[in-house]
Amino acid sequence: MIVNNTVDFVAGRGTINLIHQQNKESYNLERGDVIRVPAGALIYLINRDSNDKFQIASLFQPVSTPTNTFREFFGVGGENPESFFNVFSDEILEAAFNTERERLDKVFRQQRQGEIVEASQEQIRALSRDASSSQEGGHIWSRRGSRSSRGPYNLLNKRPTHSNEFGQLHEVDGNDYSQLQDLDVAVTFHNIKQGAMVAPFYNSKATSLVVVVEGRGRFEMACPHVSSSKRQRSQGRREYEQEEEREESGSAHYQRVSARLSPRTAFIVPAGHPVSIVASDNQNLQIVAFKINVENNQRNYLAGQENVLNQLEREAKELAFNMPAKEVEAIFNNQRQSVFLPGPNQRQQREEGRHGGLLLDTIKDVFMF
Amino acid sequence: MIVNNTVDFVAGRGTINLIHQQNKESYNLERGDVIRVPAGALIYLINRDSNDKFQIASLFQPVSTPTNTFREFFGVGGENPESFFNVFSDEILEAAFNTERERLDKVFRQQRQGEIVEASQEQIRALSRDASSSQEGGHIWSRRGSRSSRGPYNLLNKRPTHSNEFGQLHEVDGNDYSQLQDLDVAVTFHNIKQGAMVAPFYNSKATSLVVVVEGRGRFEMACPHVSSSKRQRSQGRREYEQEEEREESGSAHYQRVSARLSPRTAFIVPAGHPVSIVASDNQNLQIVAFKINVENNQRNYLAGQENVLNQLEREAKELAFNMPAKEVEAIFNNQRQSVFLPGPNQRQQREEGRHGGLLLDTIKDVFMF
Amino acid sequence: MIVNNTVDFVAGRGTINLIHQQNKESYNLERGDVIRVPAGALIYLINRDSNDKFQIASLFQPVSTPTNTFREFFGVGGENPESFFNVFSDEILEAAFNTERERLDKVFRQQRQGEIVEASQEQIRALSRDASSSQEGGHIWSRRGSRSSRGPYNLLNKRPTHSNEFGQLHEVDGNDYSQLQDLDVAVTFHNIKQGAMVAPFYNSKATSLVVVVEGRGRFEMACPHVSSSKRQRSQGRREYEQEEEREESGSAHYQRVSARLSPRTAFIVPAGHPVSIVASDNQNLQIVAFKINVENNQRNYLAGQENVLNQLEREAKELAFNMPAKEVEAIFNNQRQSVFLPGPNQRQQREEGRHGGLLLDTIKDVFMF
Repeated sequence: MIVNNTVDFVAGRGTINLIHQQNKESYNLERGDVIRVPAGALIYLINRDSNDKFQIASLFQPVSTPTNTFREFFGVGGENPESFFNVFSDEILEAAFNTERERLDKVFRQQRQGEIVEASQEQIRALSRDASSSQEGGHIWSRRGSRSSRGPYNLLNKRPTHSNEFGQLHEVDGNDYSQLQDLDVAVTFHNIKQGAMVAPFYNSKATSLVVVVEGRGRFEMACPHVSSSKRQRSQGRREYEQEEEREESGSAHYQRVSARLSPRTAFIVPAGHPVSIVASDNQNLQIVAFKINVENNQRNYLAGQENVLNQLEREAKELAFNMPAKEVEAIFNNQRQSVFLPGPNQRQQREEGRHGGLLLDTIKDVFMF
Repeated sequence: MIVNNTVDFVAGRGTINLIHQQNKESYNLERGDVIRVPAGALIYLINRDSNDKFQIASLFQPVSTPTNTFREFFGVGGENPESFFNVFSDEILEAAFNTERERLDKVFRQQRQGEIVEASQEQIRALSRDASSSQEGGHIWSRRGSRSSRGPYNLLNKRPTHSNEFGQLHEVDGNDYSQLQDLDVAVTFHNIKQGAMVAPFYNSKATSLVVVVEGRGRFEMACPHVSSSKRQRSQGRREYEQEEEREESGSAHYQRVSARLSPRTAFIVPAGHPVSIVASDNQNLQIVAFKINVENNQRNYLAGQENVLNQLEREAKELAFNMPAKEVEAIFNNQRQSVFLPGPNQRQQREEGRHGGLLLDTIKDVFMF
Repeated sequence: MIVNNTVDFVAGRGTINLIHQQNKESYNLERGDVIRVPAGALIYLINRDSNDKFQIASLFQPVSTPTNTFREFFGVGGENPESFFNVFSDEILEAAFNTERERLDKVFRQQRQGEIVEASQEQIRALSRDASSSQEGGHIWSRRGSRSSRGPYNLLNKRPTHSNEFGQLHEVDGNDYSQLQDLDVAVTFHNIKQGAMVAPFYNSKATSLVVVVEGRGRFEMACPHVSSSKRQRSQGRREYEQEEEREESGSAHYQRVSARLSPRTAFIVPAGHPVSIVASDNQNLQIVAFKINVENNQRNYLAGQENVLNQLEREAKELAFNMPAKEVEAIFNNQRQSVFLPGPNQRQQREEGRHGGLLLDTIKDVFMF
């Protein structure tokens, strides 16, 4: 039983069974499937592959309760994990099951194998026999005849939001998969090609919880902190500036947050925090991100052809950068790709190819203007 | 004035008056009435019965304010309870009422009798004269001619959700009584017959705030706490188990929470906490529960004919309980009732009747299989 | 970039530019304009008036993030304010812009003039050239051809909710300006004429964040605190009162909160807190209030013709004030105005005019009854 709503992203081949007051649902899961498990459902999972792992990355959205908000895993059957049945007093259990405690003990104290038990091939076949899958539309008919929409949705089968030679971005939200609507959650999958990177960007209001599925790389994020010391006043003040307002506005100071990435590394990118992610040179980097608070969220890029700063007027560029607009534009237009870009080492190689090495940098500057 | 939304469950016979910016509403209340009082309304209550108490169990949903979230009772008239009028300065009060302070004192300092005052029979008749009731559909026409839907809804007049010889369950939510919709609240009433019990169950996402209205009994609840000490590893491990995932999953340890129940005892049953309630042997136990966070909530039973575990496949039962499925099913089917069950002492009596005492238990086991 | 939703109230003449992933919007703003700025938008503001200040009162509604909830102001261009671009490592920046660090430094380290820079008349003209305004319906066509509804709404052009010789009240909420709907926010503007006051009132569930725009005056507010010492028991108890309930009900004690008001003073009026505001005798007091949690909010007046207490029945007045209803009503009817009332000094002057001074108060009392 899981007393939370969860959204799961799947790797490997397995089966999930959900039991509710009303009915039982059973789905075969495969790589890229996203499924929501409603709060309070009894679930059990089966690995259908005898050689490979069955892995799930889960977002838990706790149901608010006065006493606990954490996830709970427990068995129904035995002492390891402990069954909640064993908490009730003998007389209540005996009355509830109309059965003596000695016989109940056989049921509720037998299972001591831990949370994960080995099943025979026959048991696995039986338990996944009636399961439907995302391939079949991700939907089944429930026992009571009403069409269920609880089945999985395969994120990787959806057309990528962005795709070029440096990577692909897949995204599913409540518009594609209605189960995500009331949770205000989206799931994205980045496949960053080896040596490539994601252009620096920020989400306007969504926060991302990111997990590495495969590959290695690193990320850098700009994290704002109001500096504790009063920042030095500039000489550029004019009379029309309001003293009072300036005193109040806490000017931001940024810190870089960065880390190496490898499978199962997790990190959080809060709303409004510019971030860039780079794949290692010898392996694609695949990451899944659960995005919360996604309604009306916008993904704003800070480099590449989709750089939001390209929308500044000439005069705004002059004032913001204190240099001729055409020089700003020349630099902003240097990057011809968008979203997925050649990474640091790829760029250097190309540069070397084109210019014969870094010594020509100064000359290139002269050429440019 | 109550700066909260409240949902009230009524015992006794009274009248409630609500005053708003727009109009005044007046309702006669009787046992089983549920009424929502909107935040910020001025209310006053009248006991119309000269012999009996007029009792209300209220759920307060505080309006979020920066400085206080607690309930407030105060009078408009005097010094006990203190009127908020007395806080304003003389000159503001004098200007507001266009009247000198000395005369205002007569109004705002006269009442010193406390929050509850005695009214004459004439006053009570006058104050409840224009009141409507849940019998009349629970709705009245407001002064401005628009149909009001603020009136009470009688929970006990609604057909029970479940009823058998051991008890009745009545429930009202936003579908029945639209005033509960935006609060995401439901109200339930359990009448547990003497000696009977409610089958262990949990709410999938709702939390219940329970108050005993009449009778005596007790409840038992399983409360999960992550055990602080690393749980002992079982020998049952297999290679395909992932070390990392197991380390992360906080396995649940359960504690029993239980208490005796008597009128006006209150307790909370958080979401996902299995609970069972037993009536005393000589009196029906009547309890009202305010359920919050009810949208899509499911009530999952853990014993009786509606036991969710009955939906497990044979193979899942074998794996979960580590014993032949048919033995599990035999025990689960022993209890022929659902929701309201014979309680511990009733079961014992029947057993004695059928088998001539507990000595036959062993024999019964043999009979069963 | 502002990682918050904001609602702004404008004084002066300026232009706001908003940049998003999708498009750029530009609006000329003038006194009384209300505009919502979506979370995560890049904005810049221009003062179009060479003589006058351009002032904005903003309500920030933080986007919930794990690490910060405060507002952030920062530049895109330079070192003061620090650009977030400077946080990324050289190699990521170089790859992102496909440009060497030395050239990037020219762009990202040039601007050192602080958050507010002086623009030439030509630049200001260019930056406000394509802007639309609330006069034009507050709406423009976005680049992609879909009609935008992000433009400003002029609060002062809306018919006042209440207006008399002592003041005007303007109010805009999500019904008038759809951008406020999902924020559950309203904006009000009180123009309290010199010497006049706002009748004591409370909001049933909204909390107001108030800023003085112009003028001077003061406010008084009743703030409830549960008194720590057990309040003295009255003698007025009757048998039908329930001991238990009385013990539980925390009776409120009130404190007066008051302060002088002058331009840019801000204060908060939580839900359910009665408040009165008085203008100085020689200048109108103009205040803007951002109201949060406004859905179904009611503004309940406690004096004047709209006094909610006028709706009490005669018998309720007798019981609440412990004096004949007709005396209560005589006092409540003394104030013929509603919402905006003559203030303390105006009242005194009138009184002196009518009665020849305060000495006649006693006689007036006699006249009255």
